[in-house]
Amino acid sequence: MEQTAIQDLYQEDYAHCYGCGRNNAHGLQLKSYWQGEECVCRHTPAEHYTGGVPGFLYGGMVASLLDCHGAATAAAAKARESGEGVGRFVTASLTVDFAKPTPLGVELEIRGKVSEIKGRKVWVALSLHAGEILCATGRVLMIQLLSTSPAETSGI
Amino acid sequence: MEQTAIQDLYQEDYAHCYGCGRNNAHGLQLKSYWQGEECVCRHTPAEHYTGGVPGFLYGGMVASLLDCHGAATAAAAKARESGEGVGRFVTASLTVDFAKPTPLGVELEIRGKVSEIKGRKVWVALSLHAGEILCATGRVLMIQLLSTSPAETSGI
Repeated sequence: MEQTAIQDLYQEDYAHCYGCGRNNAHGLQLKSYWQGEECVCRHTPAEHYTGGVPGFLYGGMVASLLDCHGAATAAAAKARESGEGVGRFVTASLTVDFAKPTPLGVELEIRGKVSEIKGRKVWVALSLHAGEILCATGRVLMIQLLSTSPAETSGI
Repeated sequence: MEQTAIQDLYQEDYAHCYGCGRNNAHGLQLKSYWQGEECVCRHTPAEHYTGGVPGFLYGGMVASLLDCHGAATAAAAKARESGEGVGRFVTASLTVDFAKPTPLGVELEIRGKVSEIKGRKVWVALSLHAGEILCATGRVLMIQLLSTSPAETSGI
């Protein structure tokens, strides 16, 4: 059975994000999947998202990938803990540490692992790899929007 | 006399960034200007950079604006301190604290203030306002690339 991406379980009205919204035709439409004890997203950025020097991803996109995938990781982890459906999280705080330049033209792997869940707050530790190269690490504090707690179970 | 944007003083080979490169036709082409003891950038993001809920900017773009403007602030401050031309900085670390949702359709004002300069390292404190609303604050550690230290003075 094919796994459903976490972003495809966001409520219709909350699925417009440029980074990860299925309803944003201009955006990246990132897809994140639960895998073991982690959440994984694979994405190959377009060449025009270059940094100052061509051939490397611009820092803002590294931050975007970690941020959107962090939100998905939080949503999935909270749904698994509560047994309820996938809610929608917003970022309270995001930190990115850039370890190495992120090459373009390579599929990137972004991994998220939950550090703590406390009510509507979820802390996630993140990493971004290009092949074997660890390009960036990050951490986010995500907060669940009160208006997004669907009752049905999601099956992630 | 019209002031030159800091990004327009970046070396030709380092001006391709999606966020702030004058040589990136697809990008935002952010422009930052030194003003008193701060550095200021004004930008109105396009509507498709929406977050999950339409009408508000997605978090990754908030991070991008702070990151690119942080790099410009660092470059300008270092040039003013050293009396040399504007070099190119890359981000070592970026933290964003999201205070309120950032509305779309409004000109945003991003401000950067240098906290410390130590050799090639520059720390910058950042804020993002939409009118009177403080939407986000941030801080970055920027590091000057060794290859970008033009000898001529820049006049910022």
